[in-house]
Amino acid sequence: MPYVNIKVTREGVTREQKAALIAGVTGLLVRILDKDPATTHVVIDEVDPDNWGLGGLSVPEHRARRAA
Amino acid sequence: MPYVNIKVTREGVTREQKAALIAGVTGLLVRILDKDPATTHVVIDEVDPDNWGLGGLSVPEHRARRAA
Amino acid sequence: MPYVNIKVTREGVTREQKAALIAGVTGLLVRILDKDPATTHVVIDEVDPDNWGLGGLSVPEHRARRAA
Amino acid sequence: MPYVNIKVTREGVTREQKAALIAGVTGLLVRILDKDPATTHVVIDEVDPDNWGLGGLSVPEHRARRAA
Amino acid sequence: MPYVNIKVTREGVTREQKAALIAGVTGLLVRILDKDPATTHVVIDEVDPDNWGLGGLSVPEHRARRAA
Amino acid sequence: MPYVNIKVTREGVTREQKAALIAGVTGLLVRILDKDPATTHVVIDEVDPDNWGLGGLSVPEHRARRAA
Repeated sequence: MPYVNIKVTREGVTREQKAALIAGVTGLLVRILDKDPATTHVVIDEVDPDNWGLGGLSVPEHRARRAA
Repeated sequence: MPYVNIKVTREGVTREQKAALIAGVTGLLVRILDKDPATTHVVIDEVDPDNWGLGGLSVPEHRARRAA
Repeated sequence: MPYVNIKVTREGVTREQKAALIAGVTGLLVRILDKDPATTHVVIDEVDPDNWGLGGLSVPEHRARRAA
Repeated sequence: MPYVNIKVTREGVTREQKAALIAGVTGLLVRILDKDPATTHVVIDEVDPDNWGLGGLSVPEHRARRAA
Repeated sequence: MPYVNIKVTREGVTREQKAALIAGVTGLLVRILDKDPATTHVVIDEVDPDNWGLGGLSVPEHRARRAA
Repeated sequence: MPYVNIKVTREGVTREQKAALIAGVTGLLVRILDKDPATTHVVIDEVDPDNWGLGGLSVPEHRARRAA
């Protein structure tokens, strides 16, 4: 019965990468907690980098400062 | 004071269906828990089917296998 | 495939009320969006009133002021 | 280590407003709880007004009735 | 920068199982999306089975009917 | 109409600190986005440190290694 929500920045995540995440996370829940994959849901939210903050800065600004 | 978050796949949910969900869920909280509708929030997230996994597969792949 | 998360204050919600919410919300998703109940998840989070804010005040403080 | 999720209606929130929210919320967590900003995440979700319900109505309908 | 939230029923998940989930999910995000583990957060929510619904029934009731 | 969810580790956050977070976050939304505080909700989730992972480790393990 697990429900997993993965939030990442929206930066060209491919369909194959999403499928690999879904398969991988579901496999972990089956192996570690013996959950039923048939009712295991994984939802991936892709978030605009301007809408994600880290260290008090938006992700683009955070990266710009680290690169400076 | 309730807050309800509904996640469904993004597949042509109409404005009328969204309004019916909002009215229905709010009505349940009023009837069952005597909540104040004025501060009851319902947020509907529509999720790209490629971003939703079930049974270890993305929803489109899951449907394709069931149909096969 | 829907996933619904209901957040309410923790104030003596009974098992019967939870079951009624689960049945009611699932029924709405079946009727309005033709979803499959077998993969419809509803998760109820009960939140300590001190941990819920409205109008800039915690719920107990908010109620105390309205009652004053 | 905090994680903060802010949901607002999608109505022209500017990059500057998002940056101000990120900086402000992170600052609160540092000042009030002495959290490390380097691992404090803030994610802003902008929600279509039709997908947000209040008082049993979608936000546009809710506003139309209040204005009437 | 990813944030992952795992919701499972509260049924004796051990510290070792939680550590395995955290390590496993973080590893997937590093391998599949090349994310930095230092800012990858995983939060596990354990939910009372009475508060989780599937198929319109709470988990205990759902299991009782399947076992019947 | 905003909804804000703050997740922090459960480590003795006081009622006064929670009230300060609620007041502070609501104030930010009023000042930056001109939101109505009367319908602004803030929910604080306190998470057991064993249930929070960072850098692929639970928080207690992560701290132990940094202190080592």
